[in-house]
Amino acid sequence: MPDPIQDFYAVIPAGGIGSRLWPLSRADAPKFLHDLTGSGQTLLRDTWDRLEPLAGPGRIAVVTGRAHRAAVERQLPGIPDPNVFLESEPRDSTAAIGLAAAILAHREPDVIIGSFAADHVIRGTRTFEFAVQQAVEVARAGYVCTIGIQPAEPSIGFGYIRKGGEIDVDGAPEAAIVESFVEKPDLETARAYYADRSYLWNAGMFISRADVLLREIAENEPELHAGLIELAAAWDDHAARGPAVDRLWPGLKKIAIDYSVAEPAAARGRLAVIPGHFDWDDVGDFASLAKLNSGGRKNDLAILGENARILSDASSGIVVSQTDRVISLIGVKDVVVVDTEDALLVTTSEHAQRVKGVVDALKLTGRGDVL
Amino acid sequence: MPDPIQDFYAVIPAGGIGSRLWPLSRADAPKFLHDLTGSGQTLLRDTWDRLEPLAGPGRIAVVTGRAHRAAVERQLPGIPDPNVFLESEPRDSTAAIGLAAAILAHREPDVIIGSFAADHVIRGTRTFEFAVQQAVEVARAGYVCTIGIQPAEPSIGFGYIRKGGEIDVDGAPEAAIVESFVEKPDLETARAYYADRSYLWNAGMFISRADVLLREIAENEPELHAGLIELAAAWDDHAARGPAVDRLWPGLKKIAIDYSVAEPAAARGRLAVIPGHFDWDDVGDFASLAKLNSGGRKNDLAILGENARILSDASSGIVVSQTDRVISLIGVKDVVVVDTEDALLVTTSEHAQRVKGVVDALKLTGRGDVL
Repeated sequence: MPDPIQDFYAVIPAGGIGSRLWPLSRADAPKFLHDLTGSGQTLLRDTWDRLEPLAGPGRIAVVTGRAHRAAVERQLPGIPDPNVFLESEPRDSTAAIGLAAAILAHREPDVIIGSFAADHVIRGTRTFEFAVQQAVEVARAGYVCTIGIQPAEPSIGFGYIRKGGEIDVDGAPEAAIVESFVEKPDLETARAYYADRSYLWNAGMFISRADVLLREIAENEPELHAGLIELAAAWDDHAARGPAVDRLWPGLKKIAIDYSVAEPAAARGRLAVIPGHFDWDDVGDFASLAKLNSGGRKNDLAILGENARILSDASSGIVVSQTDRVISLIGVKDVVVVDTEDALLVTTSEHAQRVKGVVDALKLTGRGDVL
Repeated sequence: MPDPIQDFYAVIPAGGIGSRLWPLSRADAPKFLHDLTGSGQTLLRDTWDRLEPLAGPGRIAVVTGRAHRAAVERQLPGIPDPNVFLESEPRDSTAAIGLAAAILAHREPDVIIGSFAADHVIRGTRTFEFAVQQAVEVARAGYVCTIGIQPAEPSIGFGYIRKGGEIDVDGAPEAAIVESFVEKPDLETARAYYADRSYLWNAGMFISRADVLLREIAENEPELHAGLIELAAAWDDHAARGPAVDRLWPGLKKIAIDYSVAEPAAARGRLAVIPGHFDWDDVGDFASLAKLNSGGRKNDLAILGENARILSDASSGIVVSQTDRVISLIGVKDVVVVDTEDALLVTTSEHAQRVKGVVDALKLTGRGDVL
């Protein structure tokens, strides 16, 4: 295990519900609180375990909703109370990560933060650690740095980062400038990107000095920045925090950090990238979950659920079982069956992206009780 | 409504579980105790209502298992107690119908019985009644008579009856001799049968004098016949019935009435047929159930279940909902989803026949709790 990295603080934004994984993921059981890999522990805990050697146990902060506080603390019994940053309501990733940056910079002006989603799956500890170590060196040199994943296939499900010229930073042999971000491509384009090798998957990992990150936010979203600074100044004063949150948080602009920081910084040549040579997945939908759990064997049936009682006859895809019911599948190929106490989903990998539409329809038709 | 037919007694064997409709049908909730058509009442009650005008309410007997006595009596509050014939265990259709024939012949020597499955679906009251009226006239003339269904399509799911020459019986203008029985055909053969018009579906309806039916059984299965006669002699003696049942019933040969009566009688020219020009279905599997409930519209999703909460996006097939869970289907075609408290089935119409295999597998793997 490496020594913790000097001046480094890991930040885990634990916010999104993961609507495309409904009815498994839902408001009171968001994606990061599930074991989606059969590891025996939640994705949040996996994320913590991955970051602990890099930051040290006392130097990981979690940004989460008030509703999830208890669950998060159960998952992470080692987390110091001052490192749990509670949102009164979700205000998107700039507010979440910016709040952590502002609080940590207020406590420790030279701190370098790295933010890592609570609900991604990563395999390959050493290569992950090496990528973060390099990214921290690049951040020390004043860049905002992202880790872009070396594509394992020509995916059309992710956005891409186009890597430009190398940057000369000690301890970061793979550092390069980010030329541009590109949206999810069509298959032909994805194949070209894959062949090119200078396109990396955008995994939303950002590492930078907290003050550098805040400066980027200030430049692009000055009001939001002002709110964050004011919140941070009040945060560690127990009498002041509550009123400051009530007054400021609900008014913060909702904007993804990709738009408030990453893309503008890239446009100005201030965004660097380290290629990540590890397996990564954001488990964005059930097709991705099926692939993750089938070991890549297309004709297998992946099963998630500790007490699953499954009987499969010539079926493939994935079954997620959260009840003790017997589930029997006959001749259904590439199927997605998600069996929970109050809701059942049946679809196929092909249509996995449309699950979000169901969630929207349930809201609209007054069946929000199962969301 | 017609007057009840002279000397006629209707018999409803209510025995089979309907394994191919698992997990809807099961040991403690067999097919005949379900509403499979959305009529608002069970198939058993539908059968009773269909027969009552023909036989009269006091002249319908039900042969069922001891376990189903209470449910049957709840469904048929008008049934006289002496008309419920309880089996201590299932011994196939010759024992069930033969027992009814023997008891009723013992009570009323000239009785004509007609046996009609408790779990078939029939639409077309007048044409059904006309077929039964004709069949009774044919039975009066000494034949065993069946009602064969005029095929609505070239089905490969049913056995066929080949109609031969006409029989001259007053009041039975459509009566004909049965030339032979043929097993479920392949599609090409089914098409030829359908075009020919002399092939009828074997719906397992038999009408004959009780003594004639018993004579057929005696000729082909003399031991079974002797057992039935002995049981019938003891049946209405409350002290004698129990010991007779315990002694005789478990040893009766298990044989379908098709083999003990219908086929041998046909071979000897003693089996007649009346063509039935009504809609009929034995609802043998979920494909059949789907078709029955979709009104023939292939792209529709049929829904069975009073409190079903279904959200369907571009899906077709059938959902049977016995829970209050929200069921969401996305892009699944011709699907079969059966959602019960302790078991879930997902398959397609194409594989509906294989449901019985699942039931067998559940027995073998010690999961009989959900059968």
